[in-house]
Amino acid sequence: MIAVIKSTATESQIKNLIGWFEKQGVRVNESKGEFCTVLGLIGDTTGIDIDLLSGLDIIENVTRISDPFKKANRKFHPEDTIVDIGGVKIGGGNFAVIAGPCSVESEEQIVETAKAVKAAGATLLRGGAFKPRTSPYDFQGLKEEGLKLLIKAREATGLPIVTEIMGADQLHLFEDIDCLQVGARNMQNFELLKALGKSGKPVLLKRGIAATMKELLMSAEYIMAEGNENVILCERGIRTYETYTRNTFDLSAIPMLKELTHLPIVADPSHATGKASLIKPMSMASVASGADGLEIEVHPNPSKALSDGAQSLTPAQFEDVSAAIARIRAAL
Amino acid sequence: MIAVIKSTATESQIKNLIGWFEKQGVRVNESKGEFCTVLGLIGDTTGIDIDLLSGLDIIENVTRISDPFKKANRKFHPEDTIVDIGGVKIGGGNFAVIAGPCSVESEEQIVETAKAVKAAGATLLRGGAFKPRTSPYDFQGLKEEGLKLLIKAREATGLPIVTEIMGADQLHLFEDIDCLQVGARNMQNFELLKALGKSGKPVLLKRGIAATMKELLMSAEYIMAEGNENVILCERGIRTYETYTRNTFDLSAIPMLKELTHLPIVADPSHATGKASLIKPMSMASVASGADGLEIEVHPNPSKALSDGAQSLTPAQFEDVSAAIARIRAAL
Amino acid sequence: MIAVIKSTATESQIKNLIGWFEKQGVRVNESKGEFCTVLGLIGDTTGIDIDLLSGLDIIENVTRISDPFKKANRKFHPEDTIVDIGGVKIGGGNFAVIAGPCSVESEEQIVETAKAVKAAGATLLRGGAFKPRTSPYDFQGLKEEGLKLLIKAREATGLPIVTEIMGADQLHLFEDIDCLQVGARNMQNFELLKALGKSGKPVLLKRGIAATMKELLMSAEYIMAEGNENVILCERGIRTYETYTRNTFDLSAIPMLKELTHLPIVADPSHATGKASLIKPMSMASVASGADGLEIEVHPNPSKALSDGAQSLTPAQFEDVSAAIARIRAAL
Amino acid sequence: MIAVIKSTATESQIKNLIGWFEKQGVRVNESKGEFCTVLGLIGDTTGIDIDLLSGLDIIENVTRISDPFKKANRKFHPEDTIVDIGGVKIGGGNFAVIAGPCSVESEEQIVETAKAVKAAGATLLRGGAFKPRTSPYDFQGLKEEGLKLLIKAREATGLPIVTEIMGADQLHLFEDIDCLQVGARNMQNFELLKALGKSGKPVLLKRGIAATMKELLMSAEYIMAEGNENVILCERGIRTYETYTRNTFDLSAIPMLKELTHLPIVADPSHATGKASLIKPMSMASVASGADGLEIEVHPNPSKALSDGAQSLTPAQFEDVSAAIARIRAAL
Repeated sequence: MIAVIKSTATESQIKNLIGWFEKQGVRVNESKGEFCTVLGLIGDTTGIDIDLLSGLDIIENVTRISDPFKKANRKFHPEDTIVDIGGVKIGGGNFAVIAGPCSVESEEQIVETAKAVKAAGATLLRGGAFKPRTSPYDFQGLKEEGLKLLIKAREATGLPIVTEIMGADQLHLFEDIDCLQVGARNMQNFELLKALGKSGKPVLLKRGIAATMKELLMSAEYIMAEGNENVILCERGIRTYETYTRNTFDLSAIPMLKELTHLPIVADPSHATGKASLIKPMSMASVASGADGLEIEVHPNPSKALSDGAQSLTPAQFEDVSAAIARIRAAL
Repeated sequence: MIAVIKSTATESQIKNLIGWFEKQGVRVNESKGEFCTVLGLIGDTTGIDIDLLSGLDIIENVTRISDPFKKANRKFHPEDTIVDIGGVKIGGGNFAVIAGPCSVESEEQIVETAKAVKAAGATLLRGGAFKPRTSPYDFQGLKEEGLKLLIKAREATGLPIVTEIMGADQLHLFEDIDCLQVGARNMQNFELLKALGKSGKPVLLKRGIAATMKELLMSAEYIMAEGNENVILCERGIRTYETYTRNTFDLSAIPMLKELTHLPIVADPSHATGKASLIKPMSMASVASGADGLEIEVHPNPSKALSDGAQSLTPAQFEDVSAAIARIRAAL
Repeated sequence: MIAVIKSTATESQIKNLIGWFEKQGVRVNESKGEFCTVLGLIGDTTGIDIDLLSGLDIIENVTRISDPFKKANRKFHPEDTIVDIGGVKIGGGNFAVIAGPCSVESEEQIVETAKAVKAAGATLLRGGAFKPRTSPYDFQGLKEEGLKLLIKAREATGLPIVTEIMGADQLHLFEDIDCLQVGARNMQNFELLKALGKSGKPVLLKRGIAATMKELLMSAEYIMAEGNENVILCERGIRTYETYTRNTFDLSAIPMLKELTHLPIVADPSHATGKASLIKPMSMASVASGADGLEIEVHPNPSKALSDGAQSLTPAQFEDVSAAIARIRAAL
Repeated sequence: MIAVIKSTATESQIKNLIGWFEKQGVRVNESKGEFCTVLGLIGDTTGIDIDLLSGLDIIENVTRISDPFKKANRKFHPEDTIVDIGGVKIGGGNFAVIAGPCSVESEEQIVETAKAVKAAGATLLRGGAFKPRTSPYDFQGLKEEGLKLLIKAREATGLPIVTEIMGADQLHLFEDIDCLQVGARNMQNFELLKALGKSGKPVLLKRGIAATMKELLMSAEYIMAEGNENVILCERGIRTYETYTRNTFDLSAIPMLKELTHLPIVADPSHATGKASLIKPMSMASVASGADGLEIEVHPNPSKALSDGAQSLTPAQFEDVSAAIARIRAAL
């Protein structure tokens, strides 16, 4: 970490500051320039609060040189992490396709979809039992009942389950679930992250609505700091001013994160774009960019008005996407 | 709500869709144009999922005409809501100044600051006991012990307390706290919002890191839908690409929200700008724009290197801000 | 276009408004609801100013149903446009690779690079003679001299030239240039767009720093409205709050724009990411997403400290990217 | 400027880089740490391209310590600049109110409005003759004829004129205009900025659609580097994801820019919010935050359907705003 001190700072102010740094356990290398003094902080600076420092009157500017994440950092852990979800591996060359409906609606719906997506190449089943909704008046999911139906679908197909948890106090309900998803709105629900860290279960951590990659990695670090290294990151689009797509799919985040971390990274083109017609090209692009997997919404029953053409694909469309992904994977 | 149907939709697809709307309890007014068919939905459409609709193949475009928030909506509740926090009123012409340190550090620190801010015009005391931090390695607050120290400071000064809660399972610890703050990162932690709704306690709800005003109001609605109308909104800056300030202070949100809702709205120039030197002008601007109150960080001990000039003001600087605010309030 | 009128509007205000619409040549379909009146505007509404309308007191909300671009619209021109740049075709299945240095520096540099990129598979040569720089103190390019050196490089290799123009009054200098590039900062320099429209020359139009896709298409429309249909769009990243990459590469814009328009679309991973290490994966992803071409910075002389590893690739790295692109193209 | 070199860099790579810096005329202070080498660059680094540097393979991170703007920098020019627009001063305690219609429509319209805004307290007249429009099919202004009508309005009232110029080749038409406005879309039209720099005329430079404050100051620097110090900055809102207001009014930019530069700064609440009802509170807030002036749209003829309640105020509403501004100014 480098702190640039303003030319207006007095000697005693600088001394005080250096003393404070040393109390935090970091060594300080002082170098005086014409217009400013530069302090180089050496040692473990992860505990130094950069926002607090930046706000000091005598500080011109603070820059963190080393990344503030440690356990997630590829520098200290060069090999790819491989996460095992109920026997299905992801990361380190293992590619996973997580597919299923947005919400679990009924036993028939989820079992039928599970069979269809398995036949079309999915390796994991997704489906929402607890649904975070912007409005309290929108459907909030089947909750516990939904979890039970997911387990039935797993029994029928053998596909391990990925489903969302919304609070630390729900953890006991998820004991028989293979992988717990943290939604974008909860990416910085630190109480939930700590609880998941203690659980030891595989976690699929979605990037926050407007989170930076660094914040995503720091949230992974919360889980890992409790001893759980089974974390999978997910790029699902970020908020911008563009309106033709629901979010802006930050696909560069896939290869960028692969440089920064050893954790597996999947892409979610369904939420990132919000448009069924973009899922196929963006799934192919995700694979070409180096993603370790995909999460795709598939809805079973194209006869209902509402399922026809929503951001979910039909099973037949999903099969077409699966084949396209396979062609790209073969070309890599 | 208005749904525009693509010219490529078949008669039977449109019929199906209309049938589905009617099952949701809304009446549909169909009007055929040259290039498209327009469906006007009449009745209570708050339960209709606009994202789902927008994703349908046959839909060109969906627009919600009426705002999706009801209890927070000024249209249905024209008079200003006045919230009572331990005897201090806010809203409907009652102006509150919430001041205190970022974190509670010790009994001496919090009691001393409480006395200083009271003397300088504060009407409520703030101070963090549970601290949401991006990094798991940063100081997380004194927790329960911090809450006890806040109560001591209240005993010493009579100032009611505003402090942050981070999870639904902490609620029992906050029984003797006057107003519970929901931080920006938890604005869409719906499990927490519902628990606060049931608690009936005054809630200070901060706008999310990159939340729209509509999302802020929908989160207020989550609390109100459980029967708790004691909600105060807080504008604290939103995330953009500008870097001279920590966030972009969306001050227009104050008068805009006052049109949309009857709830009181306060501004937090400390977090919105991240710069001590901007707090005075932006506090004055907040008052001039119509805010019902301010939340300002004040730190007691200017002799410590780290408190000197951080985003916190010293008590003396806060007194200067208080006087400036009073001049603007007199001019309104 | 649909205008929703507030319930507080009087009959005579609505009448006035309808009269005004009819004077603009559009027919109006009025439908009264419980809470509002909805006006459907039928006919050519491209001339109606949506911002002006939205600002009216009596208007709740205005939505444009049909896209405001006509000549660029795929609805009215379903076949892909193919642009011919000095004999090299792009669009409609023709894939182009535009490569070369950021700036033209010397005859040796540009000729050498042109030969190297041609050998590695480039079909068009890029190189900046006029350079838009944020700071007036930064290098502004070799200007006219740079254009002459580009022509020498074309003579040596046969590669047609793509280079940036910064103002309408420079047009006479570009007579012998094959394709004129409009930079991100000039995407809404309407005087320049109109002049390029009159010139009839192929134009490579880069998306603005923070432009929406609709604005990009409207800027293409400015060129096309003057009779020049030789427009190629370019996605080069947009501004967000993410800092690991220089911009956020909005790759979904490639398939989204291909739905909306018949114009060819290329991707520029060099500017979109600002990182040499991301160019290969994001070039592959661009091709997989359906791009009609790529624009990639290549710098010839890896022995200079400054060229080594900048956002430019070396010729050898570019050759590797070319091979990877070819593999993806074969898989499509 | 501080450059942090990766631990993987070789001695000879670092030597090369230092040699290159020295050729650019800056001295280099090298300091080796455990994990990296830090180079402090001393002297005039305004010519060093930070983007180019950041992209180098051996560079971890580059930070500019001193601001890249010189002539606009308050550090080197502590006193406020006062700009004289046809006898009306702005800056250094002189407050200006620039008012008038969005577009000049007719002699009657502009003369009538000029008289009305003068009576209500405006000191400068605004009105668009050349109009930048997103769509080529929208009204583009009366052009030369509009400039003549503005001059007539000045003759009738004595109010100096502020109006927009869109290209360097229009400059000869603006000889008799008092202050030339550069619109948000042209903030980085560098050819135009240089031409205005040479003209010596007062320039009102609006912040770009999504420009940072630093970019705004660098664009001012383009004008000033040509010898013209008569530059007034204007905050007019920036692009974000919020939709209730047209832009997000970054009001903190007013006091922040006043710290960074000596140039006068005005606020434009009309464009920043896009809502007539927000202009009064945000004008008051702008004044309270320290603005040197306001630019407000006023339209004369409330009987036309379209002028009634647009983002423009009526003369009577403007009078009310003027009185409110005066109260806030008195309180400062």
